[in-house]
Amino acid sequence: MKCLDCGYETDINQKIITCPRCGGLLEIKVKLKGFSFSNLKGRGVWRYKDAIPGNYSKIVSINEGNTPLIPSRIYKQTFYKFEGANPTGSFKDRGMTVAVSSAVNTGYKVVAAASTGNTAASAAAYASRAGLRIYLVLPKGKVALGKLAQSILYGATILEVNGSFDIAMASVMRLYKDLGIVYPLNSFNPWRLEGQKTIAYEIAEEIGEPDNVIVPVGNAGNIYAIWKGFTELQEAGVISKIPRMIGIQAEGAAPIAKAIEKGLNEPEFFENPETIATAIRIGKPVNWKKAIKAIRSSKGTALSVSDQEIIDAQKKLAREEGIGAEPASAAALAGYEKAINEGIIDKDQKNVLILTGHALKDPDAMLRLDARRILINPEHIENIVLGEINDNN
Amino acid sequence: MKCLDCGYETDINQKIITCPRCGGLLEIKVKLKGFSFSNLKGRGVWRYKDAIPGNYSKIVSINEGNTPLIPSRIYKQTFYKFEGANPTGSFKDRGMTVAVSSAVNTGYKVVAAASTGNTAASAAAYASRAGLRIYLVLPKGKVALGKLAQSILYGATILEVNGSFDIAMASVMRLYKDLGIVYPLNSFNPWRLEGQKTIAYEIAEEIGEPDNVIVPVGNAGNIYAIWKGFTELQEAGVISKIPRMIGIQAEGAAPIAKAIEKGLNEPEFFENPETIATAIRIGKPVNWKKAIKAIRSSKGTALSVSDQEIIDAQKKLAREEGIGAEPASAAALAGYEKAINEGIIDKDQKNVLILTGHALKDPDAMLRLDARRILINPEHIENIVLGEINDNN
Repeated sequence: MKCLDCGYETDINQKIITCPRCGGLLEIKVKLKGFSFSNLKGRGVWRYKDAIPGNYSKIVSINEGNTPLIPSRIYKQTFYKFEGANPTGSFKDRGMTVAVSSAVNTGYKVVAAASTGNTAASAAAYASRAGLRIYLVLPKGKVALGKLAQSILYGATILEVNGSFDIAMASVMRLYKDLGIVYPLNSFNPWRLEGQKTIAYEIAEEIGEPDNVIVPVGNAGNIYAIWKGFTELQEAGVISKIPRMIGIQAEGAAPIAKAIEKGLNEPEFFENPETIATAIRIGKPVNWKKAIKAIRSSKGTALSVSDQEIIDAQKKLAREEGIGAEPASAAALAGYEKAINEGIIDKDQKNVLILTGHALKDPDAMLRLDARRILINPEHIENIVLGEINDNN
Repeated sequence: MKCLDCGYETDINQKIITCPRCGGLLEIKVKLKGFSFSNLKGRGVWRYKDAIPGNYSKIVSINEGNTPLIPSRIYKQTFYKFEGANPTGSFKDRGMTVAVSSAVNTGYKVVAAASTGNTAASAAAYASRAGLRIYLVLPKGKVALGKLAQSILYGATILEVNGSFDIAMASVMRLYKDLGIVYPLNSFNPWRLEGQKTIAYEIAEEIGEPDNVIVPVGNAGNIYAIWKGFTELQEAGVISKIPRMIGIQAEGAAPIAKAIEKGLNEPEFFENPETIATAIRIGKPVNWKKAIKAIRSSKGTALSVSDQEIIDAQKKLAREEGIGAEPASAAALAGYEKAINEGIIDKDQKNVLILTGHALKDPDAMLRLDARRILINPEHIENIVLGEINDNN
């Protein structure tokens, strides 16, 4: 493990979460040995257990991962990795199975997470499955309805703060550092990213390496985790190259896209992040260093898209591709189309868009779209339908 | 194909949906030839294409099926088939890929479905993917929020009727019969059940044949479809026996459970079905004959559970198993526990509970559960968490 802040290095140790010297962000270095897809067994995240460091005498799993890679109907050679098919409806489950298993195996009884919602739902589910107590810190009034409801369903203790996700995040960080008894389930915990990287393993096993991978960026752990997965496979000779990582942010919460655009070494944070894509409504991404590393070293880039572009993309995904994704996921499609228009991506390349969460996570976002609803007398249904069909033909 | 009402028989014909002679319910007879799991390719519903009759020059798919079979943490030898992991969050997607592909391959441009919500969401997604026009007939005010929102997301025309699902169902039936140009996507369409039967194929491929399969029963097509899948596998010698099919209904909408209990040949319908489990809030199940056939010929049974038992089971599933399912799915757990208590099933047998839909389908049901929510000052988080932990230890 190596600290991205102070450069401290130590052997991989499952008990270590942040740098023991400076408290910074740690990278876990994994070297695959004799790895081959044809030797693997099982499905989902733990199919790739040879690539996941740590000891797991007990694995806490709800059969996460093994999500569909859906070919686009509109764009050639383009695929959607639909992470909404995970047990709690988002990619977070992949990391949570590893982190919660780690918490159990290292003896923790209490876990905590700050969240814009998806982390909360996932952490609460895995804590329930493991029989752990869980505290969720949520920005009051800023969490999509489905995700708040899931946190209640799973019986978590919900601590609400007035303010943004970034304030909630800082309290969990302090809780972890001040009270050693609380295991943190946020993505500054590098063990979570070891689970999330299996997105790359699944893509590579199914279609080989793509040319570009387009990822919505909020707290910025996922784009790094996916890059890390491809990097491990490339270093082991399983794939021949690492795809370009293209990060997509919402205009109102775009510190990483702006840093890439301006060539900054360190992003300027957004004090009051604002976007309808609540899952990426984060002004101060805890993993910004990792994200920028993944983007720059893969010769990728980061772009921002407007809320209107996100809404249009959500509709397009649903009404032309048949795929229901939450607004933050739709940002990937909006960004992908922008990247094509700007000549950043060639649409004849092999592209994968990561759809991070299910449309059902945010019913209000769906209810705001244009609707065709008519109250009818059931006895007149033939006339209504016939009239409509004739009008439109 | 054979009519369950008048006994009329004809060769399998993809254009036929109801009995050409009497309009009754048709069964599609499938005889597997040289079928072996080890020869199959791909994943999900179409992995089992050798068992799905019909011609499909174009398949309309969103990578449905391939859902997790999650082992229970509480009950030995018991598994949850989590159909919430399908693209639109319910098992309906399995049937919809077959029926919509059939509609496309037989030349239809317009499809329609009555729905308590899950069929609507699924039909709208597949119609979008296929580029077909879709009409959904919904009982006004009786559809769970997530499902209504999905129907809007996918851009369907929503026709609302004052009254129950059964009235909506009757109008779609009439629409189909009076206007030949509308392809019906309800489960009286036997082609949908050919997709749904792959639940049985997936279970058998993963763990062999269970002793009991517990299925929530609404319009009653799914319990028959799953039984049909196991029956085909048993007739082909792939498995050695057909599991007992145990149907679970809500007390306020329990025509089939009552018919089984009283030994009736024909159920007494519920004129005003009522239950919080909106997905099975059906008083007059269109597939009652098929369901009763599946239950009786497998030596199974049907039970009803109260709304309170359903709520308790939803909480137990989430808080002890880590699985988020909608109320109708939780009915399977409530019924399973009742069946154990009544000595109907032995908990040391191999049991599979079908969890038909995702918890996110019905956020209101989750929000009604007891919640632990506290507004905090983030600077005091350590004190709050420490206080709580001490109080409870």
